[in-house]
Amino acid sequence: MKMIRRSSGAMGVVGLLLVILMLTPVATPSRSRAQDQPAGPGDLKAPPGTLDAVTAILTRRSIRDYTPRPVPEETIKLLLTAGMAAPSAFDERSTEFVVVNDPKILKEFAKVNPNSRQLKKMTVGIVVCGNKNKQKHKGLGYWQLDGAAASENILIAAHALGLGAVWTAIYPYPDRIPMVQKLLQLPEEVIPLNIIPIGYPAERKLTGNRFDPARAHYNRW
Amino acid sequence: MKMIRRSSGAMGVVGLLLVILMLTPVATPSRSRAQDQPAGPGDLKAPPGTLDAVTAILTRRSIRDYTPRPVPEETIKLLLTAGMAAPSAFDERSTEFVVVNDPKILKEFAKVNPNSRQLKKMTVGIVVCGNKNKQKHKGLGYWQLDGAAASENILIAAHALGLGAVWTAIYPYPDRIPMVQKLLQLPEEVIPLNIIPIGYPAERKLTGNRFDPARAHYNRW
Repeated sequence: MKMIRRSSGAMGVVGLLLVILMLTPVATPSRSRAQDQPAGPGDLKAPPGTLDAVTAILTRRSIRDYTPRPVPEETIKLLLTAGMAAPSAFDERSTEFVVVNDPKILKEFAKVNPNSRQLKKMTVGIVVCGNKNKQKHKGLGYWQLDGAAASENILIAAHALGLGAVWTAIYPYPDRIPMVQKLLQLPEEVIPLNIIPIGYPAERKLTGNRFDPARAHYNRW
Repeated sequence: MKMIRRSSGAMGVVGLLLVILMLTPVATPSRSRAQDQPAGPGDLKAPPGTLDAVTAILTRRSIRDYTPRPVPEETIKLLLTAGMAAPSAFDERSTEFVVVNDPKILKEFAKVNPNSRQLKKMTVGIVVCGNKNKQKHKGLGYWQLDGAAASENILIAAHALGLGAVWTAIYPYPDRIPMVQKLLQLPEEVIPLNIIPIGYPAERKLTGNRFDPARAHYNRW
Protein backbone atom coordinates (compact mmCIF):
# COMPACT_ATOMS: atom_id res chain seq x y z
CA MET A 1 0.00 0.00 0.00
CA LYS A 2 2.98 2.25 0.58
CA MET A 3 3.82 2.00 -3.11
CA ILE A 4 0.35 3.15 -4.08
CA ARG A 5 0.49 6.19 -1.83
CA ARG A 6 3.88 7.24 -3.14
CA SER A 7 2.83 7.07 -6.79
CA SER A 8 -0.68 8.52 -6.45
CA GLY A 9 0.34 12.15 -6.82
CA ALA A 10 1.98 11.61 -10.19
CA MET A 11 -0.53 9.22 -11.69
CA GLY A 12 -3.86 10.75 -10.76
CA VAL A 13 -7.05 9.08 -9.63
CA VAL A 14 -7.60 6.90 -12.73
CA GLY A 15 -4.04 5.61 -12.58
CA LEU A 16 -4.47 4.95 -8.87
CA LEU A 17 -7.62 2.96 -9.51
CA LEU A 18 -5.89 0.96 -12.25
CA VAL A 19 -2.95 0.22 -9.98
CA ILE A 20 -5.36 -0.96 -7.29
CA LEU A 21 -7.19 -3.08 -9.87
CA MET A 22 -3.89 -4.64 -10.96
CA LEU A 23 -2.74 -5.22 -7.41
CA THR A 24 -5.95 -6.54 -5.95
CA PRO A 25 -5.67 -10.22 -6.99
CA VAL A 26 -2.10 -10.35 -5.68
CA ALA A 27 -3.10 -8.80 -2.38
CA THR A 28 -5.92 -11.27 -1.78
CA PRO A 29 -4.44 -14.39 -0.22
CA SER A 30 -7.32 -16.65 -1.25
CA ARG A 31 -6.54 -15.92 -4.91
CA SER A 32 -2.79 -16.40 -5.06
CA ARG A 33 -1.08 -19.54 -3.77
CA ALA A 34 -4.44 -21.16 -3.18
CA GLN A 35 -4.49 -21.85 -6.94
CA ASP A 36 -1.72 -24.41 -6.38
CA GLN A 37 -3.69 -26.48 -3.93
CA PRO A 38 -7.18 -27.41 -2.83
CA ALA A 39 -9.30 -24.31 -2.32
CA GLY A 40 -9.78 -25.06 1.36
CA PRO A 41 -10.27 -27.88 3.80
CA GLY A 42 -13.89 -28.81 3.21
CA ASP A 43 -16.32 -26.23 4.48
CA LEU A 44 -13.70 -24.24 6.40
CA LYS A 45 -12.65 -20.78 5.26
CA ALA A 46 -10.43 -18.16 6.80
CA PRO A 47 -12.54 -15.07 7.61
CA PRO A 48 -11.69 -11.88 5.66
CA GLY A 49 -8.91 -9.95 7.36
CA THR A 50 -7.08 -13.05 8.60
CA LEU A 51 -3.37 -12.20 8.79
CA ASP A 52 -1.01 -13.89 6.36
CA ALA A 53 0.89 -16.77 7.94
CA VAL A 54 4.34 -15.17 7.96
CA THR A 55 3.11 -11.91 9.51
CA ALA A 56 1.01 -13.86 12.02
CA ILE A 57 4.01 -15.93 13.10
CA LEU A 58 6.36 -12.95 13.30
CA THR A 59 3.98 -10.60 15.17
CA ARG A 60 2.40 -13.12 17.57
CA ARG A 61 2.97 -12.31 21.24
CA SER A 62 1.73 -13.87 24.48
CA ILE A 63 -1.46 -12.01 25.46
CA ARG A 64 -2.58 -12.34 29.08
CA ASP A 65 -5.36 -9.73 29.35
CA TYR A 66 -8.70 -10.04 27.56
CA THR A 67 -11.79 -7.90 27.12
CA PRO A 68 -15.15 -9.35 28.25
CA ARG A 69 -16.29 -9.66 24.58
CA PRO A 70 -17.26 -13.32 24.09
CA VAL A 71 -15.40 -15.46 21.56
CA PRO A 72 -17.89 -17.07 19.12
CA GLU A 73 -18.31 -20.85 19.39
CA GLU A 74 -17.48 -21.20 15.67
CA THR A 75 -14.14 -19.48 16.26
CA ILE A 76 -13.26 -21.93 19.03
CA LYS A 77 -14.15 -24.78 16.67
CA LEU A 78 -11.90 -23.29 13.99
CA LEU A 79 -9.06 -23.13 16.54
CA LEU A 80 -9.63 -26.78 17.49
CA THR A 81 -9.51 -27.66 13.79
CA ALA A 82 -6.24 -25.74 13.50
CA GLY A 83 -4.88 -27.78 16.42
CA MET A 84 -6.02 -31.03 14.80
CA ALA A 85 -4.28 -30.07 11.53
CA ALA A 86 -0.85 -30.23 13.21
CA PRO A 87 1.39 -33.12 12.20
CA SER A 88 1.86 -36.00 14.66
CA ALA A 89 4.33 -38.84 14.93
CA PHE A 90 3.21 -41.72 12.69
CA ASP A 91 0.03 -39.67 12.12
CA GLU A 92 -1.20 -41.03 15.46
CA ARG A 93 -3.21 -37.91 16.32
CA SER A 94 -2.51 -38.44 19.99
CA THR A 95 -3.50 -34.88 20.90
CA GLU A 96 -6.92 -34.24 22.41
CA PHE A 97 -8.54 -30.94 23.36
CA VAL A 98 -10.78 -29.87 26.22
CA VAL A 99 -12.59 -26.54 25.82
CA VAL A 100 -13.19 -24.97 29.22
CA ASN A 101 -15.92 -22.32 29.48
CA ASP A 102 -18.00 -23.44 32.46
CA PRO A 103 -17.67 -20.62 35.05
CA LYS A 104 -17.36 -23.11 37.94
CA ILE A 105 -14.50 -24.96 36.25
CA LEU A 106 -12.84 -21.70 35.18
CA LYS A 107 -12.86 -20.57 38.81
CA GLU A 108 -11.16 -23.78 39.91
CA PHE A 109 -8.69 -23.53 37.03
CA ALA A 110 -7.35 -20.24 38.37
CA LYS A 111 -6.07 -22.19 41.41
CA VAL A 112 -3.84 -24.39 39.21
CA ASN A 113 -1.38 -21.50 39.07
CA PRO A 114 -2.46 -18.68 41.41
CA ASN A 115 0.31 -16.44 40.00
CA SER A 116 -1.11 -16.55 36.49
CA ARG A 117 -3.18 -13.48 35.67
CA GLN A 118 -4.44 -14.99 32.40
CA LEU A 119 -6.10 -17.84 34.32
CA LYS A 120 -8.04 -15.27 36.37
CA LYS A 121 -9.05 -13.29 33.25
CA MET A 122 -9.96 -16.23 31.04
CA THR A 123 -13.58 -16.85 30.01
CA VAL A 124 -12.71 -19.63 27.57
CA GLY A 125 -9.59 -21.74 27.20
CA ILE A 126 -8.42 -24.81 25.31
CA VAL A 127 -6.60 -27.49 27.30
CA VAL A 128 -4.23 -29.36 24.98
CA CYS A 129 -3.66 -32.94 26.14
CA GLY A 130 -1.59 -35.91 25.02
CA ASN A 131 -3.25 -39.30 25.05
CA LYS A 132 -0.45 -41.75 25.85
CA ASN A 133 -2.62 -44.70 24.84
CA LYS A 134 -2.60 -43.44 21.26
CA GLN A 135 1.20 -43.72 21.01
CA LYS A 136 2.42 -46.73 19.03
CA HIS A 137 5.86 -46.74 20.60
CA LYS A 138 4.97 -46.41 24.26
CA GLY A 139 8.58 -46.53 25.45
CA LEU A 140 9.35 -43.26 23.65
CA GLY A 141 7.91 -39.94 24.84
CA TYR A 142 6.74 -37.90 21.89
CA TRP A 143 3.07 -37.11 22.65
CA GLN A 144 4.49 -33.85 24.10
CA LEU A 145 5.90 -32.90 20.69
CA ASP A 146 2.60 -33.56 18.92
CA GLY A 147 0.78 -31.51 21.56
CA ALA A 148 3.25 -28.65 21.28
CA ALA A 149 2.84 -28.46 17.50
CA ALA A 150 -0.96 -28.45 17.89
CA SER A 151 -0.66 -25.71 20.55
CA GLU A 152 1.44 -23.53 18.27
CA ASN A 153 -1.17 -23.90 15.50
CA ILE A 154 -3.83 -22.63 17.92
CA LEU A 155 -1.65 -19.71 19.05
CA ILE A 156 -0.90 -18.61 15.49
CA ALA A 157 -4.48 -19.04 14.24
CA ALA A 158 -5.83 -17.11 17.25
CA HIS A 159 -3.47 -14.20 16.60
CA ALA A 160 -4.20 -14.24 12.87
CA LEU A 161 -7.92 -13.94 13.70
CA GLY A 162 -7.32 -10.92 15.96
CA LEU A 163 -7.51 -12.87 19.23
CA GLY A 164 -5.05 -13.01 22.09
CA ALA A 165 -3.77 -16.25 23.61
CA VAL A 166 -0.89 -17.60 25.65
CA TRP A 167 0.62 -21.03 26.30
CA THR A 168 0.02 -21.56 30.02
CA ALA A 169 2.04 -24.57 31.15
CA ILE A 170 0.53 -27.52 33.00
CA TYR A 171 3.09 -30.17 31.94
CA PRO A 172 5.84 -30.75 33.05
CA TYR A 173 4.82 -29.47 36.51
CA PRO A 174 4.20 -32.50 38.74
CA ASP A 175 1.72 -30.58 40.95
CA ARG A 176 -0.38 -29.05 38.17
CA ILE A 177 -0.95 -32.21 36.09
CA PRO A 178 -3.01 -34.15 38.70
CA MET A 179 -4.97 -30.99 39.65
CA VAL A 180 -6.14 -30.54 36.06
CA GLN A 181 -6.70 -34.26 35.53
CA LYS A 182 -9.03 -34.28 38.55
CA LEU A 183 -10.80 -31.05 37.58
CA LEU A 184 -11.55 -32.20 34.02
CA GLN A 185 -12.00 -35.88 34.95
CA LEU A 186 -9.24 -36.92 32.55
CA PRO A 187 -8.20 -40.58 32.43
CA GLU A 188 -4.74 -41.30 33.83
CA GLU A 189 -3.22 -41.75 30.35
CA VAL A 190 -4.36 -38.30 29.20
CA ILE A 191 -1.77 -35.72 30.23
CA PRO A 192 -2.71 -32.03 30.11
CA LEU A 193 0.14 -30.18 28.42
CA ASN A 194 -1.13 -26.62 28.74
CA ILE A 195 -4.19 -24.42 28.74
CA ILE A 196 -4.48 -21.71 26.09
CA PRO A 197 -6.85 -18.92 27.18
CA ILE A 198 -8.57 -17.32 24.17
CA GLY A 199 -9.95 -13.79 24.21
CA TYR A 200 -10.01 -10.41 22.52
CA PRO A 201 -6.78 -8.65 23.55
CA ALA A 202 -6.94 -6.02 26.28
CA GLU A 203 -3.21 -5.35 26.01
CA ARG A 204 -0.93 -4.41 23.14
CA LYS A 205 2.61 -5.58 22.68
CA LEU A 206 5.18 -4.48 20.14
CA THR A 207 7.16 -6.92 18.05
CA GLY A 208 10.54 -6.53 16.46
CA ASN A 209 12.61 -8.71 14.18
CA ARG A 210 13.50 -11.58 16.49
CA PHE A 211 16.20 -13.08 14.26
CA ASP A 212 19.22 -13.76 16.47
CA PRO A 213 22.36 -14.74 14.54
CA ALA A 214 23.76 -16.46 17.66
CA ARG A 215 21.00 -19.08 17.39
CA ALA A 216 21.56 -19.75 13.66
CA HIS A 217 24.33 -22.15 12.68
CA TYR A 218 25.41 -23.43 9.28
CA ASN A 219 26.40 -27.07 8.69
CA ARG A 220 28.21 -27.33 12.02
CA TRP A 221 28.13 -25.77 15.46
CA MET B 1 -13.81 -11.07 -4.88
CA LYS B 2 -17.01 -13.10 -5.25
CA MET B 3 -19.08 -10.14 -4.11
CA ILE B 4 -17.41 -7.86 -6.64
CA ARG B 5 -18.13 -10.22 -9.51
CA ARG B 6 -21.77 -10.59 -8.56
CA SER B 7 -22.44 -6.85 -8.44
CA SER B 8 -20.31 -5.76 -11.41
CA GLY B 9 -23.00 -6.26 -14.07
CA ALA B 10 -25.43 -3.90 -12.40
CA MET B 11 -22.97 -1.25 -11.33
CA GLY B 12 -20.74 -0.80 -14.36
CA VAL B 13 -17.01 -0.26 -14.54
CA VAL B 14 -16.83 2.92 -12.42
CA GLY B 15 -18.92 1.30 -9.69
CA LEU B 16 -16.71 -1.77 -9.87
CA LEU B 17 -13.57 0.33 -9.44
CA LEU B 18 -15.14 2.15 -6.50
CA VAL B 19 -16.13 -1.12 -4.87
CA ILE B 20 -12.58 -2.41 -5.33
CA LEU B 21 -11.27 0.85 -3.88
CA MET B 22 -13.55 0.44 -0.86
CA LEU B 23 -12.74 -3.23 -0.43
CA THR B 24 -9.00 -3.07 -0.96
CA PRO B 25 -7.98 -2.24 2.61
CA VAL B 26 -10.10 -5.14 3.90
CA ALA B 27 -8.69 -7.60 1.37
CA THR B 28 -5.07 -6.68 2.04
CA PRO B 29 -3.88 -8.52 5.13
CA SER B 30 -1.16 -5.98 5.88
CA ARG B 31 -3.79 -3.27 6.16
CA SER B 32 -6.55 -4.98 8.12
CA ARG B 33 -5.64 -6.53 11.44
CA ALA B 34 -2.20 -5.02 11.13
CA GLN B 35 -3.75 -1.71 12.17
CA ASP B 36 -4.08 -3.17 15.65
CA GLN B 37 -0.41 -3.94 15.90
CA PRO B 38 3.00 -2.94 14.60
CA ALA B 39 3.19 -2.96 10.81
CA GLY B 40 5.74 -5.75 10.79
CA PRO B 41 8.74 -7.10 12.62
CA GLY B 42 11.46 -4.68 11.61
CA ASP B 43 12.59 -5.10 8.04
CA LEU B 44 10.77 -8.39 7.51
CA LYS B 45 7.79 -8.62 5.20
CA ALA B 46 5.73 -11.54 3.96
CA PRO B 47 6.20 -11.86 0.18
CA PRO B 48 3.09 -11.22 -1.96
CA GLY B 49 1.05 -14.39 -2.32
CA THR B 50 1.83 -15.72 1.16
CA LEU B 51 -1.15 -17.81 2.31
CA ASP B 52 -3.26 -16.52 5.17
CA ALA B 53 -2.45 -18.21 8.47
CA VAL B 54 -5.66 -20.19 8.87
CA THR B 55 -5.56 -21.59 5.32
CA ALA B 56 -1.84 -22.33 5.71
CA ILE B 57 -2.44 -24.27 8.92
CA LEU B 58 -5.44 -26.17 7.55
CA THR B 59 -3.90 -27.09 4.17
CA ARG B 60 -0.34 -27.91 5.31
CA ARG B 61 0.74 -31.48 4.63
CA SER B 62 4.03 -33.34 5.06
CA ILE B 63 5.92 -33.03 1.76
CA ARG B 64 8.72 -35.54 1.16
CA ASP B 65 9.60 -34.97 -2.53
CA TYR B 66 11.21 -31.78 -3.81
CA THR B 67 12.17 -30.36 -7.19
CA PRO B 68 15.84 -29.43 -7.76
CA ARG B 69 14.94 -25.69 -7.76
CA PRO B 70 17.12 -24.07 -5.10
CA VAL B 71 15.52 -22.34 -2.11
CA PRO B 72 16.82 -18.75 -1.81
CA GLU B 73 19.06 -18.01 1.17
CA GLU B 74 16.73 -15.16 2.20
CA THR B 75 13.82 -17.60 2.40
CA ILE B 76 15.78 -19.87 4.72
CA LYS B 77 16.58 -16.86 6.89
CA LEU B 78 12.88 -15.95 6.99
CA LEU B 79 12.08 -19.51 8.10
CA LEU B 80 14.72 -19.29 10.84
CA THR B 81 13.16 -16.01 11.97
CA ALA B 82 9.76 -17.73 12.03
CA GLY B 83 11.26 -20.44 14.24
CA MET B 84 12.79 -17.86 16.54
CA ALA B 85 9.42 -16.10 16.89
CA ALA B 86 7.91 -19.14 18.66
CA PRO B 87 7.18 -18.76 22.36
CA SER B 88 9.46 -20.49 24.85
CA ALA B 89 9.20 -21.33 28.52
CA PHE B 90 10.23 -18.29 30.59
CA ASP B 91 11.23 -16.70 27.26
CA GLU B 92 14.47 -18.68 27.51
CA ARG B 93 14.85 -19.09 23.74
CA SER B 94 16.49 -22.47 24.27
CA THR B 95 15.95 -23.49 20.64
CA GLU B 96 18.88 -23.28 18.21
CA PHE B 97 18.94 -23.99 14.48
CA VAL B 98 21.49 -25.59 12.18
CA VAL B 99 20.99 -25.07 8.44
CA VAL B 100 22.41 -28.00 6.50
CA ASN B 101 23.21 -27.46 2.82
CA ASP B 102 26.77 -28.79 2.46
CA PRO B 103 26.50 -31.75 0.02
CA LYS B 104 28.95 -33.83 2.07
CA ILE B 105 26.93 -33.39 5.25
CA LEU B 106 23.64 -33.93 3.41
CA LYS B 107 24.98 -37.26 2.13
CA GLU B 108 25.86 -38.35 5.65
CA PHE B 109 22.51 -37.13 6.96
CA ALA B 110 20.66 -39.59 4.72
CA LYS B 111 22.23 -42.39 6.79
CA VAL B 112 20.58 -41.12 10.01
CA ASN B 113 17.38 -42.78 8.81
CA PRO B 114 17.98 -44.83 5.65
CA ASN B 115 14.21 -45.41 5.28
CA SER B 116 13.48 -41.72 4.93
CA ARG B 117 13.09 -40.65 1.30
CA GLN B 118 13.03 -36.95 2.22
CA LEU B 119 16.55 -37.21 3.64
CA LYS B 120 17.77 -38.55 0.28
CA LYS B 121 15.95 -35.82 -1.68
CA MET B 122 16.85 -32.88 0.57
CA THR B 123 19.21 -30.15 -0.68
CA VAL B 124 18.66 -27.92 2.34
CA GLY B 125 17.25 -28.66 5.78
CA ILE B 126 16.92 -26.98 9.15
CA VAL B 127 17.92 -29.00 12.21
CA VAL B 128 15.93 -27.75 15.21
CA CYS B 129 17.84 -28.29 18.47
CA GLY B 130 17.19 -27.71 22.15
CA ASN B 131 20.02 -26.25 24.21
CA LYS B 132 19.59 -27.78 27.66
CA ASN B 133 22.05 -25.27 29.14
CA LYS B 134 19.58 -22.47 28.36
CA GLN B 135 16.88 -24.03 30.58
CA LYS B 136 16.44 -22.28 33.93
CA HIS B 137 14.80 -25.27 35.59
CA LYS B 138 17.13 -28.04 34.55
CA GLY B 139 15.21 -30.75 36.42
CA LEU B 140 12.19 -30.24 34.16
CA GLY B 141 12.26 -31.26 30.51
CA TYR B 142 10.61 -28.60 28.39
CA TRP B 143 13.23 -27.66 25.77
CA GLN B 144 11.41 -30.25 23.59
CA LEU B 145 8.20 -28.20 23.77
CA ASP B 146 9.97 -24.99 22.78
CA GLY B 147 11.64 -26.78 19.89
CA ALA B 148 8.36 -28.32 18.74
CA ALA B 149 6.63 -24.92 18.68
CA ALA B 150 9.54 -23.46 16.69
CA SER B 151 9.38 -26.42 14.28
CA GLU B 152 5.67 -25.92 13.69
CA ASN B 153 6.29 -22.25 12.88
CA ILE B 154 8.82 -23.29 10.24
CA LEU B 155 6.46 -25.90 8.76
CA ILE B 156 3.57 -23.42 8.50
CA ALA B 157 5.69 -20.58 7.15
CA ALA B 158 7.27 -22.89 4.54
CA HIS B 159 3.88 -24.05 3.31
CA ALA B 160 2.51 -20.50 3.29
CA LEU B 161 5.45 -19.50 1.05
CA GLY B 162 4.74 -22.33 -1.41
CA LEU B 163 7.46 -24.63 -0.10
CA GLY B 164 7.24 -28.23 1.05
CA ALA B 165 8.65 -29.49 4.34
CA VAL B 166 8.28 -32.33 6.81
CA TRP B 167 9.16 -32.91 10.46
CA THR B 168 11.76 -35.70 10.32
CA ALA B 169 12.34 -37.01 13.83
CA ILE B 170 15.77 -37.27 15.42
CA TYR B 171 14.66 -37.04 19.09
CA PRO B 172 13.55 -39.19 20.92
CA TYR B 173 15.45 -41.92 19.01
CA PRO B 174 18.48 -42.92 21.10
CA ASP B 175 20.47 -44.01 18.02
CA ARG B 176 19.81 -40.92 15.86
CA ILE B 177 20.65 -38.24 18.43
CA PRO B 178 24.38 -39.08 18.80
CA MET B 179 24.75 -39.61 15.03
CA VAL B 180 23.53 -36.07 14.34
CA GLN B 181 25.44 -34.59 17.28
CA LYS B 182 28.65 -36.06 15.84
CA LEU B 183 27.90 -35.06 12.25
CA LEU B 184 27.15 -31.41 13.15
CA GLN B 185 29.69 -31.23 15.98
CA LEU B 186 27.00 -30.29 18.49
CA PRO B 187 27.94 -29.94 22.14
CA GLU B 188 26.52 -32.63 24.44
CA GLU B 189 23.88 -30.28 25.88
CA VAL B 190 22.47 -29.46 22.43
CA ILE B 191 19.92 -32.13 21.48
CA PRO B 192 18.76 -32.31 17.85
CA LEU B 193 14.97 -32.62 17.88
CA ASN B 194 14.34 -33.02 14.15
CA ILE B 195 15.47 -32.00 10.70
CA ILE B 196 13.03 -30.17 8.46
CA PRO B 197 13.95 -30.52 4.76
CA ILE B 198 12.87 -27.46 2.76
CA GLY B 199 12.18 -27.56 -0.97
CA TYR B 200 9.75 -26.76 -3.74
CA PRO B 201 7.14 -29.55 -3.68
CA ALA B 202 7.39 -32.33 -6.25
CA GLU B 203 4.26 -34.01 -4.89
CA ARG B 204 0.73 -32.80 -4.28
CA LYS B 205 -1.49 -33.87 -1.45
CA LEU B 206 -5.14 -33.09 -0.89
CA THR B 207 -6.45 -31.81 2.41
CA GLY B 208 -9.86 -32.18 3.95
CA ASN B 209 -11.48 -30.79 7.06
CA ARG B 210 -9.54 -32.58 9.79
CA PHE B 211 -11.89 -31.67 12.64
CA ASP B 212 -12.61 -34.86 14.58
CA PRO B 213 -15.37 -34.51 17.19
CA ALA B 214 -13.95 -37.48 19.13
CA ARG B 215 -10.87 -35.40 19.98
CA ALA B 216 -12.86 -32.37 21.13
CA HIS B 217 -14.18 -32.35 24.69
CA TYR B 218 -16.09 -29.71 26.62
CA ASN B 219 -15.36 -28.93 30.29
CA ARG B 220 -14.83 -32.59 31.19
CA TRP B 221 -13.74 -35.84 29.52
